Order: sequence, then C-alpha cells, then structure tokens
Amino acid sequence: MQQKLNLVPFVSVDKMMKLVHLIGVETFLIELAEEIEKDFRRWESFDKVARIPAHSQEGVIELMPTTDGEVYGFKYVNGHPKNTRTGRQTVTAFGLLADMATGYPLMLSEMTMLTALRTAAMSALAAKYLAPEHARTMAIIGNGAQSEFQALAFKALLGVNQVRLYDIDRSASLKCARNLVGSGIDCVIAASAQEAVLGADIVTTVTADKLNATILTDNMIGPGIHINAVGGDSPGKTELHADILHRASIFVEYPPQTRIEGEIQQLSADHPVTELWSVIADRAEGRRGRDEITLFDSVGFAVEDFSALRYVRRKLAETGLYEDLDLLADPDEPRDLYGMLMRAKMPRAVA
Amino acid sequence: MQQKLNLVPFVSVDKMMKLVHLIGVETFLIELAEEIEKDFRRWESFDKVARIPAHSQEGVIELMPTTDGEVYGFKYVNGHPKNTRTGRQTVTAFGLLADMATGYPLMLSEMTMLTALRTAAMSALAAKYLAPEHARTMAIIGNGAQSEFQALAFKALLGVNQVRLYDIDRSASLKCARNLVGSGIDCVIAASAQEAVLGADIVTTVTADKLNATILTDNMIGPGIHINAVGGDSPGKTELHADILHRASIFVEYPPQTRIEGEIQQLSADHPVTELWSVIADRAEGRRGRDEITLFDSVGFAVEDFSALRYVRRKLAETGLYEDLDLLADPDEPRDLYGMLMRAKMPRAVA
Repeated sequence: MQQKLNLVPFVSVDKMMKLVHLIGVETFLIELAEEIEKDFRRWESFDKVARIPAHSQEGVIELMPTTDGEVYGFKYVNGHPKNTRTGRQTVTAFGLLADMATGYPLMLSEMTMLTALRTAAMSALAAKYLAPEHARTMAIIGNGAQSEFQALAFKALLGVNQVRLYDIDRSASLKCARNLVGSGIDCVIAASAQEAVLGADIVTTVTADKLNATILTDNMIGPGIHINAVGGDSPGKTELHADILHRASIFVEYPPQTRIEGEIQQLSADHPVTELWSVIADRAEGRRGRDEITLFDSVGFAVEDFSALRYVRRKLAETGLYEDLDLLADPDEPRDLYGMLMRAKMPRAVA
Repeated sequence: MQQKLNLVPFVSVDKMMKLVHLIGVETFLIELAEEIEKDFRRWESFDKVARIPAHSQEGVIELMPTTDGEVYGFKYVNGHPKNTRTGRQTVTAFGLLADMATGYPLMLSEMTMLTALRTAAMSALAAKYLAPEHARTMAIIGNGAQSEFQALAFKALLGVNQVRLYDIDRSASLKCARNLVGSGIDCVIAASAQEAVLGADIVTTVTADKLNATILTDNMIGPGIHINAVGGDSPGKTELHADILHRASIFVEYPPQTRIEGEIQQLSADHPVTELWSVIADRAEGRRGRDEITLFDSVGFAVEDFSALRYVRRKLAETGLYEDLDLLADPDEPRDLYGMLMRAKMPRAVA
C-alpha cells in the first residue's frame, strides 16, 4: 500500500465485521489458524516476553508485544469480569503493527472482535494436534462472548458438530444456542457442568470470574479427553481442580507467562509441560494414545495476536476495509517539527 | 464527557496542533510542566516499570506504561536516527489513557508533537530546581526536531533569552534560529560545541545518533553549569564523556531505567544519583551551591507521558478538538459479541 507518511490504516470495529463477513466466519477462522500455525512453526524467530500487566481490584490491563525482527506487533487488552454489569465487554482490545526498520506504525486495528476470533482459532489449532481422532462432541462450560467463536472454530477445523452447553446463567446458554441455529452445529443445554461433559470428546472451559474456581473436578474427566482451558488466564484465576492437572499431559504457549497466569500456577514451577509450538513444528509429540488426557492450558500469547494482525493487514489492499488515521506528524523536513507546528497556525493558502 | 461505549476520543496530529495554538505554545509548555510537577510530587502513587524495548539494528520501539491506580496510560514510541534520510521522523509516538476500573480506553492521541512538548517541559522543570539562579543563556548541541521546543520551554519557565546553537549540520542550526525569530530568544550559531558552551549557564545536549558519542568533554564544562542531557537515552547511546559524570551531581527520573539507558550507563551500577521527584517533593536537595555542576540525565519516563495525556484530555471537553474513533465493540448485550457480528451482516433496517 502506498500511503502518506502521516496516515496509518485503521480497522474499526465496523470495518472488521465487514471483513469477517466478506471472507466468511469459518473461512476467516481457518485462514487465521493457518497464519498462527505458520508463525508457531517459526516460534524461535520471535522475541518473546511475558505480557506486561497493570492489575486493579476489578481486573487487569495488559500490553502484549512481540517482533520477528522485521515486523513489530502489540496488543492492548483488558480483562474486567464485572464490566458486563454496566453493559461493557469483559475483554476489549486493540492492536498495532509497525515496521522494525523505521518504527513507523503499519496498521492500527480494533481487536475485541479479532481477539475473540484468534482465541477460538488458537484453541482449535491446538486441538488439531491434541484432541482424540474423530472428535465430534465438545462441551463448552461458560457461554459468554467467546463461546460461539469456540464452537465455530472447532467445527471449521475439526468437524465438531455437537456442543453441550453449560453456564451458571442459563440465559447465556440460550443465547449461545440461538446464535448457532443454522450453523450446522447441534446444541444441547445441560443442567450442570457434570452433565455437559457427558460423552464429550473435548471439554472447553471459558468462564470469566476473576478468582480461583473449580469448574472441572477430577471425577468429571475420563480417559482420552482433550481439555481446552481458556478462561484461567490471570494470577489467581483458574478453572480446573489441581488433580486433573496431575493426570493430564499439559501443553502451553509460552511457559514463563503460563506459569504465572495459567492453570499450572497451581503446580510447582518445574512441573513438566510441553510447548505447543514444538508439537506444531514436529519437534515434540502431541497426543500419544487413546487414553491420554491432554490439556491445552491456554492464556493467549502475543505471537497469536501478531499472526492475527498480519492476516488482517494482508486483506486491506484488496478489500479497502480501512480508514486513514492522521496519527503521525510528517513535516516536509523531518528535523523541522516545530516549523510544521508553526505553519499549521497560518491560514491555509488557496490550492 | 458522555459518550457511546464503542467510541474513543482521538486526538489527531491536526487536532493537537490546533490545541497548541489555541492555548499558545508557551502557555502549553508551562501548564504541561505544572502537570508533570504535580505528578512527580505524588511519584510514589504510580506503578513504575522500565519501558519495554524491541531493538533492531536501525533503532528501537518502546512501550511505556504506568498507572496511578485510577487511570492507566501508555505510550508507543520509536527512535530511529536514520529515518530522516527517508523523510521520516526520528521519533514518532502515540499514546492512550484508560480507566483502571473498566479497562476501557478514555482517549487515544498522537504523541509525536506531544512528546516533543513534554520532553521540553520536563527539561525546563528539572532546570527550575537544578540550574543556577538567573540563568539566561543556554547552549543547545544538536538542533534537530527537539531544539526549538527546548529553547521555548526554558524561556517560558526560566526566562532564558539567549541560546547558543551548534549542530554538525549547520543547516539544522539555521533552521532552529529561523524558527525562533520573533520568539524573544536571541540565537547565536556557533562553529563548534566548544564555542557554543562559552558563557552558557545551561548546556542542553540533544543529538540523535544511536551510538556512544562524546558531545561534551570534561574541559568544556566549568563550575556552576547545569547540563540537560536529553539525547543519550538508549543502551549504547550516550553524549557525555564519563569524566564529566564524575564531577557532577546527577539527577534522574527512574533509576532502574536510567541505569540502562542514560549517561550513567557508563558508570558503576551503584554510582550515587538523586531521583528528581524527591527534589520536587522537597525530600532531597537540588542545587547545593554556585559551583556545583548539576546534570539532569534525562531519558524520558512513562509518568511524564501520563501527565501529558491527562493534560490534553482535560482540554477536550471545552475545545472539542478530537474525533470519535470506532475502536471498541459494543454489543447491546455484553456477552453477545457473536450476535453483534451476525447482525452486522444484515441490511440495516430503515430508522
């Protein structure tokens, strides 16, 4: 894209939704998972750092930067479970790509919608390597903003066509089931988490409370299950009973971050985990047998947002689904920032 | 400001320049310095962390977050000295304020212009506490984008009315002098750094090269001088000969960051420094006598950007100098993000 130096392409929420519909939700999820998969294969080429949090009583604001040496990306994201009481989202986000050679931003984008999509794509991608073969049924515990995206990603990538829903608030399950009508996914609403996991090949937990909860207890998880633990992603915020962790083979994104934020914060710091990228890059084994319990202890890592932003950016030129944002000062002479300011005072000459 | 939940006030470069002219450059610098001064007095109420850098051969991209527990702020900023060769700025920046209670952004703003203003305001604020009394003459070594802002801030806050300019590229000095015509500041262009510092009460170094340089040598600095070292702000990027550091009383913003990035990276990790906030808060002494050499080893800290963003935000309601940015997804029902996406597909109903 040729552009004026002061202008940065901006993808608003409206433009992002248009982009998703233009591509199609499931195709978007599949292509996004491919993008993440490609970047996980070259995991070692990324600068990685645990995200930088600012905690308050109500929640957390985090910055998630990474770079592959050529492109830089970061995401701003919050997690405030009580927000829904005032009509706000628990999670909102936006992100930026920049050119490492100049430091100039390449794109600013909403990421509330994009994070929902990338989290689901990441979950399904992990399951592609970890879930039992021919998995068709998934339980989803926690039926908030992320639940439909999870269902659709697992349908698109794995062929899951039955989901068993449970939420402490039944209206959330009804909302999820209603939204999935016509998607090709059968929904069953369960009366308890225990009922939801019955017969499920995959169990996804995606609750939002900011405290240690026990969404799954040991007795609920039989052999061969893949657990996709999405909701436990902050210090003091977990969803699984520690007994399950001791029976499972645990796969994580970036250990230094997951040991602080994930389910494994309940375990000793040297409890063995496998880095998911090494499975994707064929350096480590994924599922090793029919009876193994696999757990993707997902917290969300900067590389996934980097992949998502790059995916969106590649679509901009062909779709035109962005606006130009006057974000950068661009004086005619780079050293003359003050002159630019002074000239802005003068009445504009007639063109 | 009442606003729709999805919209975030955005201050573009154009709006920022209009705001500066509406307020007046010097008044803006004075009020900005007051805002920083107030925040430095309550320094201990801020969460502080050294900025998070991503280095490349050409430069660095940094994130600078902080919070006072109620409001969160961060700045994205780059430093790429070779950028001027391709018509780009060495430093560009933008920043954000957010509400810690909800994690929702309160304002997004350009900060290339604002960083130039806050860096100058910070320098002059430090000099108010550290420079010799009745200082009227300042040398400015390095006459790039930051130089005029420095001159004006020292005029506005301290009454400096003579600047002695030097740059290895004389055209930069000429540009600076030309821009300051009519400002009430007399400019003299010197043939060398040594000539520039002659008779100066304050010496400001603000060069841009990303390498250790020796802009000032020991013999150039007589007793009683205040040195405002702005350009050395990155590992391997310094401006002063170490001998000067050993003769000077050194004042810094945030020691863990300055020891990595500032002039004092040349010294041992336990070399004594005074935190500037403690001088401003009357907990430590500033200048202790006529002959003391004082050095403000400035690298720029997140709290200063926080102050600058808050200052700008307070002006928005009365001036209207912002746009609304569709940055956040705002479904009617917070948990129904997917429903919002689906409804965006339907043709809009007639109102």
